[in-house]
Amino acid sequence: MSVVKVGLLGLGVVGGGVWKVLQSNDSEIARRAGRRIEVTAVAVRDVDKARRLVGDRARIVQDGMEVVRDPDIDIVVELVGGDTLARQWVLEAIEQGKHVVTANKALLAKHGNEIFAAAHRKGVMVTYEAAVAGGIPIIKAIREGLTANRIQWLAGIINGTTNFILSEMRTRSLTFDAALADAQRLGYAEADPTFDIEGVDAAHKLTLLASLAFGIPVQFDKAHIEGISRLAQEDIGHAERLGYRIKLLGITKRGADGIELRVHPTLVPSQCLLANVEGAMNAVLVNGDVVGPTLYYGQGAGELPTASAVVADLVDVTRLAAAEPEHRVPYLAFQQDAMVDIPILPIKDVHSSFYVRLRVEDRPGVLADLSRILADCDISIGSMFQEPYGVDQADIIFLSHDASEGAVDRAMDIIRTLPFVKSDLTRLRVENLP
Amino acid sequence: MSVVKVGLLGLGVVGGGVWKVLQSNDSEIARRAGRRIEVTAVAVRDVDKARRLVGDRARIVQDGMEVVRDPDIDIVVELVGGDTLARQWVLEAIEQGKHVVTANKALLAKHGNEIFAAAHRKGVMVTYEAAVAGGIPIIKAIREGLTANRIQWLAGIINGTTNFILSEMRTRSLTFDAALADAQRLGYAEADPTFDIEGVDAAHKLTLLASLAFGIPVQFDKAHIEGISRLAQEDIGHAERLGYRIKLLGITKRGADGIELRVHPTLVPSQCLLANVEGAMNAVLVNGDVVGPTLYYGQGAGELPTASAVVADLVDVTRLAAAEPEHRVPYLAFQQDAMVDIPILPIKDVHSSFYVRLRVEDRPGVLADLSRILADCDISIGSMFQEPYGVDQADIIFLSHDASEGAVDRAMDIIRTLPFVKSDLTRLRVENLP
Repeated sequence: MSVVKVGLLGLGVVGGGVWKVLQSNDSEIARRAGRRIEVTAVAVRDVDKARRLVGDRARIVQDGMEVVRDPDIDIVVELVGGDTLARQWVLEAIEQGKHVVTANKALLAKHGNEIFAAAHRKGVMVTYEAAVAGGIPIIKAIREGLTANRIQWLAGIINGTTNFILSEMRTRSLTFDAALADAQRLGYAEADPTFDIEGVDAAHKLTLLASLAFGIPVQFDKAHIEGISRLAQEDIGHAERLGYRIKLLGITKRGADGIELRVHPTLVPSQCLLANVEGAMNAVLVNGDVVGPTLYYGQGAGELPTASAVVADLVDVTRLAAAEPEHRVPYLAFQQDAMVDIPILPIKDVHSSFYVRLRVEDRPGVLADLSRILADCDISIGSMFQEPYGVDQADIIFLSHDASEGAVDRAMDIIRTLPFVKSDLTRLRVENLP
Repeated sequence: MSVVKVGLLGLGVVGGGVWKVLQSNDSEIARRAGRRIEVTAVAVRDVDKARRLVGDRARIVQDGMEVVRDPDIDIVVELVGGDTLARQWVLEAIEQGKHVVTANKALLAKHGNEIFAAAHRKGVMVTYEAAVAGGIPIIKAIREGLTANRIQWLAGIINGTTNFILSEMRTRSLTFDAALADAQRLGYAEADPTFDIEGVDAAHKLTLLASLAFGIPVQFDKAHIEGISRLAQEDIGHAERLGYRIKLLGITKRGADGIELRVHPTLVPSQCLLANVEGAMNAVLVNGDVVGPTLYYGQGAGELPTASAVVADLVDVTRLAAAEPEHRVPYLAFQQDAMVDIPILPIKDVHSSFYVRLRVEDRPGVLADLSRILADCDISIGSMFQEPYGVDQADIIFLSHDASEGAVDRAMDIIRTLPFVKSDLTRLRVENLP
């Protein structure tokens, strides 16, 4: 049985996980792959720390370029993160004719087109199952499991940190700040949580999923991104009363005029499966024209779940190494020469239902005025309720039917200026998912 | 771009679906596969009917052997069902060096070992994504997405008919007979529903999932099978009161002494995702040692969802046709020479929690006697409640902690003979799934 030789760039949480899994499940993996998969070289900053884990079972160096240019290495696994060194090393590995496995969503969301084009020229594979939704084989499902389908849309909980925070806010009635502090204490959020809570990490992943679903180039810069840091506790309660839960979703849809690509807090029906994905778990709902809705659920982060995806990629690459490059599984699910450049819609052209909350003076005529403005802007109301606030004010909460962002912008601009409106307007999107 | 030529055996519901999808999504599929996939020959009983769908775009014959032996055909798709003609044709297709795609779970659950061995000798692929859970790419997930894992157990709702019936029984408080009649009227159950409601169809599928998970030969004859036809409406209500829902699950687990392989109605916690899979939908929960629990959900049957899986297999086979046979994705996830023969445990050696209901005389000492017998048989009780029945009887419902089937058998045999016991004993298994 021949051995596949792997060079590992990075031996942090995920890199360490990959090393451990390749040791502990060595024979189970070889029983499946038909070959042993062996890490023969590791590039790390801290050689001594790496030595304690790896012993003398692999060569340990500090410069990634040494691993990438090692003629003995078949596959380079990039787990250093960031997009400077990672980009240089990945491009050089490709140039050296090596296959690449990476978990780096930021790198691919920003430089994927360049990297895949280079790999295509050299006839090597670049796989990245671990870059989206950790251990869930969602990329494989879209890229290979649903190849019969015109994919119409997908919506996913693809950031565990924010889902954990939202679960805490709902089940324990915590404010955002308190839930974030909890998440940090428990290791679900980093000291600087900006990337997660502002939706940037989810948007990196969504960018890749959209390309896989529709066969378009990666276009992170066109994603509309809103995080959860300004979400008020009371909106979670109001949503629940209306039969919804609030989740940070990545949503991408193909319409007649273009593709929607957006990350934002979203009201979803309480009984749908995505609404019931709690804690740090991830799930992606994919709708194909042939198969209908399918859902994929599991741990979206962490040492071992992420390592599970990296190692699965190693097995895949091992299997397809000898296949004809032009018929291998394509980088973004579609053959490189079959990519299309469907435009990404600006957010103002996106349609959805809306949840709106505002505080008003509690006097006759207020509802009539509001309703008139909404109707004039072509927005119709699905449900509405009012809650007294103090002695002479009230909170009004309503759900609209389908409306364009542009129309809602216009209505909000008018409403904001009305003399009886006593608060800023809170506005969230609603998706009536199956 | 070269064309892959497919011979289709059967043009019923699924065969017709495959034909339609290959026509309607022709270019989307070619954009992914890098080749056009074309049905060039069809074998059907009713040639005239087939002609109306296919026109003159494919050769139509009555004898499957003609298709199977057609030297122009690259891949044979078997969709006739049953295991007589289907077996002969599949074996002959393999003998002719053709790759085979099938949706036939009965064929593979019973003759899979023979078929895969023949295919291995000839170096051809046999794929069957459509055989389990329709359009959900569950076989791909286990076989390729989770290759890093020692899979520990899986549990699935893999028969839509029974899940539809159970959903109706719960949400509309119907009896089994009424719910079955509904299912038949709506096309979710066949005129003779035996295979579905008695768990045989689910056991065919579970047999394949167990082999994929553990790398063991298919052993349908060793599966323990109980259906839902004797399930009483009242147990659904009692289960709900205890925080559970009843689902027909296929469960397979790897333990120290062997593998559990069982299909039966099962109480699962109401808040777990599997409990919330309603109607004719399917879902499979897979637990790997590295990735933890992952879940896969979607439509498990029907013309188009099943066709989605068949066509995905066609794309896969197209891609791997030129790969080295010994490193292609193995038939049952593990290389043919790496299969192991771990024993399947007889049901009496299986452990789980139990739900038990019985009617007793309502008089002092009854609970004490019952508790003593259970304790003597090494069964401890998790929760129990009692409901008066008439003036002098009561229904007792209890959940046990983990116990062996053998111990529960012994306890039930004793309890059945007690003078104060006024009914037969209802006994269901409980799985505290995540």
